[in-house]
Amino acid sequence: MKTNTASNITWHDGSVTRDERQQLLNQKGVTVWMTGLSASGKSTIACILEQMLLHKKKHAYRLDGDNVRFGLNKDAKLLQEKQGYEEATAKRFGLGFSADDRMENIRRIGEVAKLFTDAGVIAITSFISPYRRDRDAVRKSLAAGEFVEVYVNVSLATAEQRDPKGLYKKARAGQLKGFTGIDDPYEEPLNAEIVIDTETASPEQAAEQILAYLEKGGYLTV
Amino acid sequence: MKTNTASNITWHDGSVTRDERQQLLNQKGVTVWMTGLSASGKSTIACILEQMLLHKKKHAYRLDGDNVRFGLNKDAKLLQEKQGYEEATAKRFGLGFSADDRMENIRRIGEVAKLFTDAGVIAITSFISPYRRDRDAVRKSLAAGEFVEVYVNVSLATAEQRDPKGLYKKARAGQLKGFTGIDDPYEEPLNAEIVIDTETASPEQAAEQILAYLEKGGYLTV
Repeated sequence: MKTNTASNITWHDGSVTRDERQQLLNQKGVTVWMTGLSASGKSTIACILEQMLLHKKKHAYRLDGDNVRFGLNKDAKLLQEKQGYEEATAKRFGLGFSADDRMENIRRIGEVAKLFTDAGVIAITSFISPYRRDRDAVRKSLAAGEFVEVYVNVSLATAEQRDPKGLYKKARAGQLKGFTGIDDPYEEPLNAEIVIDTETASPEQAAEQILAYLEKGGYLTV
Repeated sequence: MKTNTASNITWHDGSVTRDERQQLLNQKGVTVWMTGLSASGKSTIACILEQMLLHKKKHAYRLDGDNVRFGLNKDAKLLQEKQGYEEATAKRFGLGFSADDRMENIRRIGEVAKLFTDAGVIAITSFISPYRRDRDAVRKSLAAGEFVEVYVNVSLATAEQRDPKGLYKKARAGQLKGFTGIDDPYEEPLNAEIVIDTETASPEQAAEQILAYLEKGGYLTV
């Protein structure tokens, strides 16, 4: 179907392409996937990276616990309270912290990051995402070069010492079950594109390291 | 936390705001929610609207069956085949076409549209979304003015006559169960921001009608 409107423009039968969106934004869509222990500094680094990208007039968007766990990946309780789901339905679709639920949590986040990537946006995710299998599934769902895994490496000792939300303390006291690093495993990435050594790099230096990778990789132009 | 980097810029402790993203894009984030029977023309109108917006250098992104049903909202079969989910897990999280599944389908799409809206993007969704309650839940989750409901109104007779994919024929023959308009209800919007009369408006005219609404409503500038 080709038609002419009053403005004399021809509209074609099909979608705007990803390439057209990337041209508009002068950047390439990509998923920057940050992984690491709680208190490793993922969110702080992600926030600074986002600001640095904005300063370069690049369109980035962060997916994190705040906008995902209270939105797309609500738990059963929130699905009942906020959506009015019946208890059984809420239990079926709600996400907790079992291995299955963590897998589905990461899958959904990966699918959303993929949509943002397709939209031409630089999607920055900051989730512990402790299981290699789940991260690799997201990588596999994206094209080569579209998944940039950033391992925010911190020792458990340092993370536990920081413990800004007192979560490690609670986990050690047995008040939090299945806490990554304490009684649930964290599986280090084997082939992360970027490894941040948080024992030596400040959050600003870490963000600059990622930014340099994106610049060098040609993501910030078309 | 405020720090100075080599480039002498101060990074603050916090997120890039939605306002900053909107300034960058020179537009306001919004969800344009198209609803209507199968074969009403939702997707065609959405595609043309997307092109018109691109022509005005606006960043829009379409969510539709193609990128959602095969991604975020995979059914149990795809979760097993593509994600390697165990059967029970796949059945739990996979989405079919029961009322519960349709509700969760629309909820997830709404959550994603909300994220795109927060990102400053013009999110265009084209799903039958037959139940008023489900659409209204999405409306409620967004701020005033952020949800623009577009009722693509077509008579069942016309939709059935078009039947580009032969779905109505199959539904009439009993080969498709729970098909909207045949053996599952379509609940018309009561207060849609825009009503498209597809008996009189061409897809281009319909897209122009929506575009005019967005322009008049101030969505295409900051």
